[in-house]
Amino acid sequence: MKKLSIKTVAVVGTGVIGRSWIPVFARAGCTVRVFDPNPEMALAAMEWFRNDLRSLRDQGKIKKKEAKARFGRVTLTETLEAALKGVGYVQESGPERPDIKNAMYLEIDRAAPAKAILGSSTSALDMTIIAQGVPGAHRCIVAHPVNPPHVVPAVEILGGASTDKKVIARTVTFMRELGQTPVVMKKFVPGFVLNRMQAALIREAVDLVASGVCDVEGVDAAIRDGLGLRWALMGPFGVANTNADGGLREYFTKYGGAYHAIWADLNTARQFDAELIDRLGRETDSMMNATLEAQRQWRDRLVAGIRELRATTPLPAKRRKQKR
Amino acid sequence: MKKLSIKTVAVVGTGVIGRSWIPVFARAGCTVRVFDPNPEMALAAMEWFRNDLRSLRDQGKIKKKEAKARFGRVTLTETLEAALKGVGYVQESGPERPDIKNAMYLEIDRAAPAKAILGSSTSALDMTIIAQGVPGAHRCIVAHPVNPPHVVPAVEILGGASTDKKVIARTVTFMRELGQTPVVMKKFVPGFVLNRMQAALIREAVDLVASGVCDVEGVDAAIRDGLGLRWALMGPFGVANTNADGGLREYFTKYGGAYHAIWADLNTARQFDAELIDRLGRETDSMMNATLEAQRQWRDRLVAGIRELRATTPLPAKRRKQKR
Repeated sequence: MKKLSIKTVAVVGTGVIGRSWIPVFARAGCTVRVFDPNPEMALAAMEWFRNDLRSLRDQGKIKKKEAKARFGRVTLTETLEAALKGVGYVQESGPERPDIKNAMYLEIDRAAPAKAILGSSTSALDMTIIAQGVPGAHRCIVAHPVNPPHVVPAVEILGGASTDKKVIARTVTFMRELGQTPVVMKKFVPGFVLNRMQAALIREAVDLVASGVCDVEGVDAAIRDGLGLRWALMGPFGVANTNADGGLREYFTKYGGAYHAIWADLNTARQFDAELIDRLGRETDSMMNATLEAQRQWRDRLVAGIRELRATTPLPAKRRKQKR
Repeated sequence: MKKLSIKTVAVVGTGVIGRSWIPVFARAGCTVRVFDPNPEMALAAMEWFRNDLRSLRDQGKIKKKEAKARFGRVTLTETLEAALKGVGYVQESGPERPDIKNAMYLEIDRAAPAKAILGSSTSALDMTIIAQGVPGAHRCIVAHPVNPPHVVPAVEILGGASTDKKVIARTVTFMRELGQTPVVMKKFVPGFVLNRMQAALIREAVDLVASGVCDVEGVDAAIRDGLGLRWALMGPFGVANTNADGGLREYFTKYGGAYHAIWADLNTARQFDAELIDRLGRETDSMMNATLEAQRQWRDRLVAGIRELRATTPLPAKRRKQKR
């Protein structure tokens, strides 16, 4: 196991996102305290974590001893104060309302050790707003994961107006130690990096169906049997780089005009409405033909498989020029 | 090997896209005729095909006997007429200019057997324009692959104004027999389905870097360690479906407003310029740190690995209700 710069963490809020941070910390070797104001939610999260460990054992990914060790590192606490005692990092995954988050941060800041970093799973809120009036605003930071973080590693990292640069650097280091991939943002924009790119693609996907160019199955096939196979390996810039013998510069210089023409033609007025959502729902149901639970388990298992494939077959790096 | 509805095909035009159709047809068991007006290009394509077979053998994916059989199915011809003799399908991958394509289609239509389908690899042109004045316009169809088609299976299928519906259906069937994934379009739009979604995402990716929200590495990490891991398995609608316990309808109903807010904030005025392209190029070079050849070989090998993973671990389908 890698050496950890932070050893004890608290998971505060145990909904779908909050609970799936538990295995991220536990498998890296952290001592994990779990707290939710609703004790039933916290119990359900522990049960979910136990099932996740069982599933890893059943798949032969970990041994019984390791599963026991991971489970043993996680403790449920009855109070926020007990959860925060002696921690170096807090992962907050409360409701996405600025007033609730602000109240939580005032409370967490009061009870957490002075050096602890206070990270938020928020997917939309600005830390400048969340940390308003919080004495320890310098240690408050957005650490927004992709659902579910124990499967998909990207985490968006963004400070607020008062966040200390060292806190950003320490969070990036810690996320790397956990095996996550920090995506560092330099300023706030609605939707952050990931949801903005997803939203841009979804607007066009929805418009292609709504305007009768193709159906849901066509759009999804174009992604999963087309663009997505490359995007699981390289982002849009890496892909552009491999698309011309002269790399990205040649590709965007040669096809920049073609991109401009498509950009000018994209329908930016498309909006969701109930009828459209229902149509997308019907076509998606008939396309998937599997229970939602089966879809999610399959996704998680195969994402793990893709990551394993990438880990065992890395891109061969350029050799450094030898000194003479 | 599956039974093929079309047994003999011609590959006309052997650039990067044209040549990589050769293994698609040859591995499915087709007899393949290869022609390029430039004999050196055609020879280079055969050499490339031989190397691709060698690489599959080296990786243990196919045996010597199979490699020999595939190579044996492919013949270089000196004239277009010789290439087209007795074929049931033509894959044209000529230059992307309407006047050149139109001239090629007049010539191909004249020489090809009456029942042959004439497919084009065009990524941008409308078959109504390409087939203008072509007596066999009813059998002309766009079959646009993703680069490279022997690795990435999606193929966009779209007829022109005169294309026979049966020709569309026969092309879809044939593509499936070849192991490709047809994406059927019902009408022409600039960029088709795939490049429109890619362009929408790239506009936002470029804007995020240009406006200083994050760097190239951040954008690419968000895709390859975030969105792309899911998109290699499910398209945007499949992903939306797994994002809420009530499926796609609940997800888009609940977050439709959030999407509208992001959509309203996306910068649709972004354009490429030389300085921006150079900056993207520099950051991409430093991110990739591998030769272009290494990047492409790695991409092709890992895409094959992901497809193998998906083929061996399919999504468990809903059981049909048993009749009583």
